[in-house]
Amino acid sequence: MNNDWNALISELKSGSIRALSRLVTRVENREPGWMEAMKEIFPETGKARLIGITGAPGSGKSTLTNRIARTLVEKGFDIGIIAVDPSSPFSGGALLGDRLRMRDVSNVEGVYVRSMATRGALGGLNQSARDVVKIMEAFGKDFIIIETVGVGQDEIDVIKIADMVMVVLVPGQGDAIQAIKAGIMEIADVFVVNKADREGADQVVIDIEAMLNLDIDSDAPKPPVLRTIALDGEGVPELVEKILAPPNPTHRQEDFMKERVKEELIGLVEKEIVGLIKDRWNENNGLERAVRDVLSHERDPYSIAQEIIAPLVPLLKKN
Amino acid sequence: MNNDWNALISELKSGSIRALSRLVTRVENREPGWMEAMKEIFPETGKARLIGITGAPGSGKSTLTNRIARTLVEKGFDIGIIAVDPSSPFSGGALLGDRLRMRDVSNVEGVYVRSMATRGALGGLNQSARDVVKIMEAFGKDFIIIETVGVGQDEIDVIKIADMVMVVLVPGQGDAIQAIKAGIMEIADVFVVNKADREGADQVVIDIEAMLNLDIDSDAPKPPVLRTIALDGEGVPELVEKILAPPNPTHRQEDFMKERVKEELIGLVEKEIVGLIKDRWNENNGLERAVRDVLSHERDPYSIAQEIIAPLVPLLKKN
Repeated sequence: MNNDWNALISELKSGSIRALSRLVTRVENREPGWMEAMKEIFPETGKARLIGITGAPGSGKSTLTNRIARTLVEKGFDIGIIAVDPSSPFSGGALLGDRLRMRDVSNVEGVYVRSMATRGALGGLNQSARDVVKIMEAFGKDFIIIETVGVGQDEIDVIKIADMVMVVLVPGQGDAIQAIKAGIMEIADVFVVNKADREGADQVVIDIEAMLNLDIDSDAPKPPVLRTIALDGEGVPELVEKILAPPNPTHRQEDFMKERVKEELIGLVEKEIVGLIKDRWNENNGLERAVRDVLSHERDPYSIAQEIIAPLVPLLKKN
Repeated sequence: MNNDWNALISELKSGSIRALSRLVTRVENREPGWMEAMKEIFPETGKARLIGITGAPGSGKSTLTNRIARTLVEKGFDIGIIAVDPSSPFSGGALLGDRLRMRDVSNVEGVYVRSMATRGALGGLNQSARDVVKIMEAFGKDFIIIETVGVGQDEIDVIKIADMVMVVLVPGQGDAIQAIKAGIMEIADVFVVNKADREGADQVVIDIEAMLNLDIDSDAPKPPVLRTIALDGEGVPELVEKILAPPNPTHRQEDFMKERVKEELIGLVEKEIVGLIKDRWNENNGLERAVRDVLSHERDPYSIAQEIIAPLVPLLKKN
């Protein structure tokens, strides 16, 4: 690993926010040496509690995240926020990147906010999020909040790396129903009915509880349903209490941790191999030729794929 | 390839719906021989026009799809519908699988409807959709409608395999804004303002047109904005006209086709290799041990990934 990385890592460990930002960017961009850097950082990881916050757009998640972050900072904790923004499939950029500017906590001492686009991450959104989490942990963050806008599959996947997931719903948008459709009910450890002063808040609570009671097979404790008004902070202390409560060890904890690591390992191997294959395939315009052959129907994509894999098969089968 | 597959394929080509269903299921499940079957089918593919329909839940996409399918059938075409359903991240199943039962076209002669979950597809959602499209083409479908609920990233990705994408919006839900956030504005070839008899329909049209005019850099023709009332069929003939119009060859066509094939090739190779790696890794509990080592912080995931890839690197670098 070159000196550059080493210097950044030691600055990171001594609390440099600039080093934190740079490391995240360089690792996100998969700059040469990123894996060695992550190896160096690894012993310092696994210390923070990861809180996921998700819900429909407009549910007040960002305001809630800000409130929670402020409250935790007041209690002496160091906070990282990863704001996952939906991104355009074509431009590749985050569409809400300027959320950063709107955050009242982004200049608060003890809070570091990082935006991340749902696509375009070279290592995949989940791995990028995992990398950022580790770098924030090595920096010394105690709590890392992963906030996602919307309820798409990618966002559900990324929120699953959190230790505790809050699902935010608001009255009057049929959100509870949307949440079921998107499969986010099952990943909730806490439900938050935000904008609880609005008409229909009681109905949302009733809807959630009704849905939770449908799951009669499960012995797991039902996730609590809390009410908040994020704008004026009402209900936030109770929410922070849940965050500070010791994790319930019986609740999916161990299997969940194993699954998370397994996914990370397979994901890392996958990305690396695919990268190598693409590199090799792009040499001599091999991929371009293959594309032309498929378009002209001279060859089929399945045979081509098998041909590419063929030399690797004996190696993979042997061991 | 065994006789079983051969028999199914020849039944498929002679128009057996039962064979169509079975082939789709067996290919989706990646049953041994699936690749050989797809090779066999490949020469019969590339004939249908793929229409993507997307939009927020509740926008009336299914009703619209039904109307379009019926109209096309009346004109003598054979129609396939792929209904992509959001699915639970835990159960792995489609949540709206029973949409099939609600479809008034699922029993119409000349229409074949297939539901597909956003996750759980062994080959990935996109590849599964591509496979189903090919099997439907080999059966003789003239138009294949890919309908997705919601606007998640996965769904945007799958809709991108279509030749023509319709984005359905409805008045009164701030849908246009949501659509931009989710990045679906840019993939639209046609905008449909459904439930156009509702208050606010004019505003939706104005919003869409305003957004389209923001994109002053582009020389591409602006996608048309049509109004429909899917429930009583109003506006559907105009929409079907757009579907039947010859594709505009200047509009992204060629690059788009190449990109689509490239993605498919890389995806196929990726899935195959990852499958092989997982198989090998699961032997002797290698993966389990690796997970334990990471959890106990004895080893880091990056070193483990590199170790797994190491034997393949010389082979991949050589050629």
